Amino acid sequence: MNMKNFILKGDICFSRSKEELSCVEQGYLVCTDGICRGVFREIPQAYAGLSVQNWEHAMILPGLYDLHVHAPQYAFAGTGMDLELLKWLETRTFPEEERYADPEYARKAYGLFARKLKESATVRACIFGTIHREATQILMEELEKTGLKTMVGKVSMDRNASAGLLEPGPFAAARSVCQWLDGVSGKYENVKPVVTPRFVPACTEELLGELGKICEERKLPVQSHLSENPSEIAWVKELCPWAESYAEVYEHFGLLGMPEAPAVMAHCVYSGESENEKKLLRENPVYIAHCPQSNTDLSSGIAPVRRYLEEGMLVGLGTDIAGGHKMSVFQTMAEAIQVSKLRWRLADDSLAPLRTEETFYLGTKGGGSFFGKVGSFEPGYELDAVIIDEERLSTPARLSMKERLERIIYLSEDRDVVGKYVAGEKIF
Amino acid sequence: MNMKNFILKGDICFSRSKEELSCVEQGYLVCTDGICRGVFREIPQAYAGLSVQNWEHAMILPGLYDLHVHAPQYAFAGTGMDLELLKWLETRTFPEEERYADPEYARKAYGLFARKLKESATVRACIFGTIHREATQILMEELEKTGLKTMVGKVSMDRNASAGLLEPGPFAAARSVCQWLDGVSGKYENVKPVVTPRFVPACTEELLGELGKICEERKLPVQSHLSENPSEIAWVKELCPWAESYAEVYEHFGLLGMPEAPAVMAHCVYSGESENEKKLLRENPVYIAHCPQSNTDLSSGIAPVRRYLEEGMLVGLGTDIAGGHKMSVFQTMAEAIQVSKLRWRLADDSLAPLRTEETFYLGTKGGGSFFGKVGSFEPGYELDAVIIDEERLSTPARLSMKERLERIIYLSEDRDVVGKYVAGEKIF
Repeated sequence: MNMKNFILKGDICFSRSKEELSCVEQGYLVCTDGICRGVFREIPQAYAGLSVQNWEHAMILPGLYDLHVHAPQYAFAGTGMDLELLKWLETRTFPEEERYADPEYARKAYGLFARKLKESATVRACIFGTIHREATQILMEELEKTGLKTMVGKVSMDRNASAGLLEPGPFAAARSVCQWLDGVSGKYENVKPVVTPRFVPACTEELLGELGKICEERKLPVQSHLSENPSEIAWVKELCPWAESYAEVYEHFGLLGMPEAPAVMAHCVYSGESENEKKLLRENPVYIAHCPQSNTDLSSGIAPVRRYLEEGMLVGLGTDIAGGHKMSVFQTMAEAIQVSKLRWRLADDSLAPLRTEETFYLGTKGGGSFFGKVGSFEPGYELDAVIIDEERLSTPARLSMKERLERIIYLSEDRDVVGKYVAGEKIF
Repeated sequence: MNMKNFILKGDICFSRSKEELSCVEQGYLVCTDGICRGVFREIPQAYAGLSVQNWEHAMILPGLYDLHVHAPQYAFAGTGMDLELLKWLETRTFPEEERYADPEYARKAYGLFARKLKESATVRACIFGTIHREATQILMEELEKTGLKTMVGKVSMDRNASAGLLEPGPFAAARSVCQWLDGVSGKYENVKPVVTPRFVPACTEELLGELGKICEERKLPVQSHLSENPSEIAWVKELCPWAESYAEVYEHFGLLGMPEAPAVMAHCVYSGESENEKKLLRENPVYIAHCPQSNTDLSSGIAPVRRYLEEGMLVGLGTDIAGGHKMSVFQTMAEAIQVSKLRWRLADDSLAPLRTEETFYLGTKGGGSFFGKVGSFEPGYELDAVIIDEERLSTPARLSMKERLERIIYLSEDRDVVGKYVAGEKIF
């Protein structure tokens, strides 16, 4: 018997597009061979033999996708929040990341991280490790066991960091990436590697060039940070005066993605201010990982996400632990709406706040498409799903399906996730 | 044996002032007759006979104070968040509040509300009911059972609401308040009444005048809304063209508090823009209930809290369910910091973001002082305390006491509250 053949019965919501939410009360979600065959009001004859799991007081949603999270920072999430980005990296983040030179520490911390990710509503994620090969491999092992689909990057950095995090020159740093890639090649079913320059200030141009070559040769995706904070952007201008925009530095070195292996750039808070950068983001296969909580916690600013969507850019959501404090894509959705309202009120009322439908799309189908055909219950999608128990949110008020979804976005916690499937595999 | 005599042992944090956090590892918090006698590193001889409760993996904090929350709105918290204040009141809030004409509905909904409040870290709160006398009495009964100390208001409104929520003229509305006050007088140990005009647009001047008289005669505190949203403020200007500021309307009718019974005004997002209003807030015994989540969710704006603190105004925090979505003062603290950062970045960099110490103060000693000498562990304070289990937040990172407190603010959930005391009484 194929375990990937089943039907989930319950109240089902998913995005068809950023405008259109599809809600079916007491519908049947059909999965065969790990692929979604659609949502039906009655079980179609062709699927009559499949086992049906019945969920009451629960909502069945596509899984959530976290496009940007730092695994080694989970251990200190929610601390040091009175600092801005560069100061925070120097005093809080780098000293903690140095500890991952110790495999024993990494095993402990990454075990906690993987367990937390597994319990959450997130089904797939793009994850930063540290510069350490061994620790990053431990992270991959811990994640492999969860069954979630993840992309993991050994971080590269050869300038402007604490001594313990500096790799000895661009070529040694690039060799270390290749050794790591060779070491993990074919080793995991669920975890794939992604090339990960920390950000321009921490990587010499030589190193960026080498990493671009690795992407090209091995057809690997890339993840990094882009235009997060005004001081960081000014610094990049100083370091690379030849580039018209921050994004152009990555583009110049082949680090803005390929059709078969797109890139994820976290933040893009200020990309809207540069026509050159916007053009590069439109014309390359780049996902913007919008991280509203992090951009608030580190006083970075508010990305003009509505503009990016209007201009046809690819946008998903990131929790950005530990720039952000809470590893929950539901809360990221809520905060994406919240900060868009404050941006509308305080800075630019030409961009309407994001709506529930839109942010739900960003956290499911929008960001999900980075990983393939996932994030929706339309026929042909890989079946990722989470079951949210609404018992704890029960109320005598009369709520529509959309309002129940809103409450899940704003009020649910990890413990309300009572079932989870990735590519048709039951995680719990 | 007096149950209000005991010692709590554990890691203890509390505010002495908005700048100064006091943290004692493995200290002894002494309570006799419900009054805090101080925090000690060793048990003083005079208290040697008291029973000691030992809390490990836990932090002992003063309880939290919620200066503004609408009990009837808890049932639909987290829905309708794509609307601004006036539209939200009309389409979401008023229809739901009408349902409290039915005592059976009120019993169900208020039972849930009271249970949730009891489970949270909140120890005392200022609470709005609806216009309905019977439902408001049910709310008071449900709250009395929790043991928490609360101020509850039957709402008054005689204009600009849906038919089902309009009281029949100012004098009938005032009579209804008196009947309610007479009906509940002396009935509850923990729940006290507070005069509650909804806000100026929903109360005729005659009604405001009558309510001012009731406050004066009965020496009762008042709670209402002030300068929340630009459209609301413009409306008040239209309705009361004679007043130099929104606050002056309340002041004119004796609704800005008395020394023995201060007022709570929720929001004050735009009070900083009127010298007249700021003066009235400084010169009257008025607490500003800062509600950052609500002000974000309803796109109202961001209150300049640092300015209010610098000018010596009284400020506490409010969750403002269901303008805000989450009934957690810890989360309100986090969002107070978050929005102050965005205000600094987007609107006015002359006001530095709020710091952890400052918002912790606002949610404890700052807002607590509305209820008397509570909110701190200095000797002579009524002993309100919550025990936060940090097991779920455990980490291999090295954290200071202040960082642990930060994590509790940013990451804890109600289920982490494992013990609670109000005025020396054990709640659980």
